[in-house]
Amino acid sequence: MKKLVVIGLGLIGGSLALDLKKRGNYKVYGVDQNPNHIKKALKLGVIDEEISFSEIVDAAVIIIAVPVNIIPNLTTQVLDIISENTLVFDVGSVKNEICKAVENHKKRKNFVAAHPLAGTEFSGPEAAILNLFEHKVNIICEADKTDWKILDEAISLFKQLNMRIKMMQPVEHDRHIAYVSHLSHISSFMLGKTVLQIEKNEQAIFDMASTGFASTVRLAKSNADTWAPIFLENKDNIITSLNEYIKNLNEFKDLIENTDDSGLRESMKNTNYIKSILNGIKEND
Amino acid sequence: MKKLVVIGLGLIGGSLALDLKKRGNYKVYGVDQNPNHIKKALKLGVIDEEISFSEIVDAAVIIIAVPVNIIPNLTTQVLDIISENTLVFDVGSVKNEICKAVENHKKRKNFVAAHPLAGTEFSGPEAAILNLFEHKVNIICEADKTDWKILDEAISLFKQLNMRIKMMQPVEHDRHIAYVSHLSHISSFMLGKTVLQIEKNEQAIFDMASTGFASTVRLAKSNADTWAPIFLENKDNIITSLNEYIKNLNEFKDLIENTDDSGLRESMKNTNYIKSILNGIKEND
Repeated sequence: MKKLVVIGLGLIGGSLALDLKKRGNYKVYGVDQNPNHIKKALKLGVIDEEISFSEIVDAAVIIIAVPVNIIPNLTTQVLDIISENTLVFDVGSVKNEICKAVENHKKRKNFVAAHPLAGTEFSGPEAAILNLFEHKVNIICEADKTDWKILDEAISLFKQLNMRIKMMQPVEHDRHIAYVSHLSHISSFMLGKTVLQIEKNEQAIFDMASTGFASTVRLAKSNADTWAPIFLENKDNIITSLNEYIKNLNEFKDLIENTDDSGLRESMKNTNYIKSILNGIKEND
Repeated sequence: MKKLVVIGLGLIGGSLALDLKKRGNYKVYGVDQNPNHIKKALKLGVIDEEISFSEIVDAAVIIIAVPVNIIPNLTTQVLDIISENTLVFDVGSVKNEICKAVENHKKRKNFVAAHPLAGTEFSGPEAAILNLFEHKVNIICEADKTDWKILDEAISLFKQLNMRIKMMQPVEHDRHIAYVSHLSHISSFMLGKTVLQIEKNEQAIFDMASTGFASTVRLAKSNADTWAPIFLENKDNIITSLNEYIKNLNEFKDLIENTDDSGLRESMKNTNYIKSILNGIKEND
């Protein structure tokens, strides 16, 4: 059995460990600076064994699933010590920083910059679930900088999880994902914050949540320690998207203030077009 | 069998018709100004028969399920012609206007101002589904103005659908629902609009939707003809909630711009509290 190491046993790292342990021919080792995560991951069967950082040298595969602000340094440290044929990939939600950080590393060819577009609002090893990546898109950036045999091994691994592979430039990835993922999280967090501030009466929130609130605010349950670094690392794109979002909210507010019934209908009908784009997508992410 | 009339065969009216036809001892008649709605409702078995407005006089129950801007006038017209023992209720998402409109009507005692907190992002008779109201909360406003026997009949009907009943003042209802429901819809519509404006590349939206976008933008598929009147009828409360929301978004943007990592974490961790409030709520609406 091949030696596979997951560094960072949260939702994504834990789910990869659990799933690859089941589907792949791997013995799965875990590294996490939080001893509670290791304990839980062992107890839940997310990993086979704990391993120390110095013992990862001869691994066949190393997955880096830590918060995005840690990824660049940690990946460099990992590439510094691994053997010639080790596949290393990260799963971070921002890709330009990490691509720049390893650009000139002598082991750049061992590295795959990946972003599996999957998740839930839960966190920690206890959030690890099977089939999280099934039919989800996995974005790979600067694939041409990876050795072709290493890349092929990564693709085989992703295909064992039934992921769909999409190649993208890191700058383009970070711009798209700011709108489609990061902005969704901020809009949800701020919706949750706004409602909490006003609705001192918690029972009212609970009673009324079936009006659309519960699903729209779902992402506000997400882990702050995961998301703060993402927002900072993709700062420029997120600021641009937030400015657009706030501008649109102000314009919509003006339509309401001016009792502009046809303006409101037109704005919403145009946006209904999202239906035909998303048609058929089921998500639990 | 009792004669039950549903006026407005959209998502809510259609679902009530369908469910009460199945669970209750009613013959269900439909009124809708759109002939296509009648045709579809008959074909899908949502109603037993079409009926003209003048024939509703001797109905046992009349449900008013039209857009909120139509409700006050239509309810007055209905109350003008019904018989002594007819139960009339509306299902509008804004309650103060309708309560004021019928306040002094001589048949006020025949009327129940209701708001079943249920729905989906779909619309029209084809969106009608069974069990939509199962275990959902139904808010009744100014119940003391309804004749007790009429109110009891309404409660029996709601209990046939397994709804939970909650009494509330209309002003209080409209204030709460602005935050918990109406604001959610606006935040979702504007998220959809913002992403559509930027992502000319539709394939990217589709590919990346599993990152939280698809669920957060779900309400942006909602019917503009339902929601424009709601936003205008609950204008003051919605403007207040939107101002708070935009203020929070600007503050969060400032935290990102100032690279205030601990500020971001604190804001999100405080908002995570929403988790414990919503815990256990499953929603499909």
